[in-house]
Amino acid sequence: MEERVMKDVSMTVVRRMPRYYHQICQLQKEGIQRISSSALADRMGLTASQIRQDFNCFGGFGQQGYGYQVESLRRELERILCLDQGRSAVLVGVGHLGSAILRNFEFSAGGVQVVGAFDPDVTVIDRKIGGVTVQSLDKMEEFIRRNKVDIAVLTVPVSVAAETAAKLESWGIRGIWNFTGAALGVEDRLPVEEVEFSQSLMVLNYRMK
Amino acid sequence: MEERVMKDVSMTVVRRMPRYYHQICQLQKEGIQRISSSALADRMGLTASQIRQDFNCFGGFGQQGYGYQVESLRRELERILCLDQGRSAVLVGVGHLGSAILRNFEFSAGGVQVVGAFDPDVTVIDRKIGGVTVQSLDKMEEFIRRNKVDIAVLTVPVSVAAETAAKLESWGIRGIWNFTGAALGVEDRLPVEEVEFSQSLMVLNYRMK
Repeated sequence: MEERVMKDVSMTVVRRMPRYYHQICQLQKEGIQRISSSALADRMGLTASQIRQDFNCFGGFGQQGYGYQVESLRRELERILCLDQGRSAVLVGVGHLGSAILRNFEFSAGGVQVVGAFDPDVTVIDRKIGGVTVQSLDKMEEFIRRNKVDIAVLTVPVSVAAETAAKLESWGIRGIWNFTGAALGVEDRLPVEEVEFSQSLMVLNYRMK
Repeated sequence: MEERVMKDVSMTVVRRMPRYYHQICQLQKEGIQRISSSALADRMGLTASQIRQDFNCFGGFGQQGYGYQVESLRRELERILCLDQGRSAVLVGVGHLGSAILRNFEFSAGGVQVVGAFDPDVTVIDRKIGGVTVQSLDKMEEFIRRNKVDIAVLTVPVSVAAETAAKLESWGIRGIWNFTGAALGVEDRLPVEEVEFSQSLMVLNYRMK
């Protein structure tokens, strides 16, 4: 039980880390070099003690009475979030959603490079979308194995999501960014992050009370 | 300061409510009619006391030693999340992302009905996408005012995001579901929920350590 609680607390904290990172990048753009935990708390709608607690989970980065150095905090957060690892990704399923992601999403801000995209539809194969050339599905296994691709961005139809995920796992994919909304059946064996559109719509609904 | 803290705790709790709702719907599908807070905690990777605390923020729905009735908990959560209010939405910007959302996203699960979609591109105007007919941008003001539309789903290019949001606000839109990643400048006056793709990619990165 204790372990479950610890693990959970830690994932809750982990999910705040990208928000800190986003805020710190913002501060740096504004030319701010140092910030106190209370000023950072004000900007983020958190409390200073919450922030100190969160950072303490990773060893703590501030100095009592001095605050945080923005540049070194940014580097720490990049390290924690593995943004400095140069991970590679393939996008699987180049329909409307897949195309939109390839065109618009800045993968480099997430520390990831898209090295390939795959679809069965001959009308998109060989087309270049967002700088990536779409390949036929039957080339995917060899491509993933040869390039030791880390991540699959899954944008296939729900009906083939689970079988695709099982294949991706067997070919060596280490994490799945799941846009399908489907349960993939591999969640116990490798990290799967869901992009949960509906939750944010529900929160919007609530806030409009 | 006290008020800020209270407000923040409450938004943190609010953001967990859709997860509870999702889980409760799941339980109902499995035919489960009653569940203890500790069994619910196990399924969600939370602690029982966390769950009781969260629900207490809304008055508490369980009975000591009896647990939660799944059906009445579902109804309570629907009420809290305003899923029962029949809110209307327009989608603004029917590019790849907008099309993908119209085609694939189940708005009804978020208690929202899409009543219109707008784009300046003549090649999509009058086309029916995901059951919604795309209209010309210049029809949007009258449509929103006449139908008293509640929500705008914003999928326009970043370059026009802020000016579009300002117009939507002036026409009576009460909340924006923001897919553009841009700061809209209306956040102080009406609720704006960001769909933050990049944060979930960063968390995936972390979990692949």
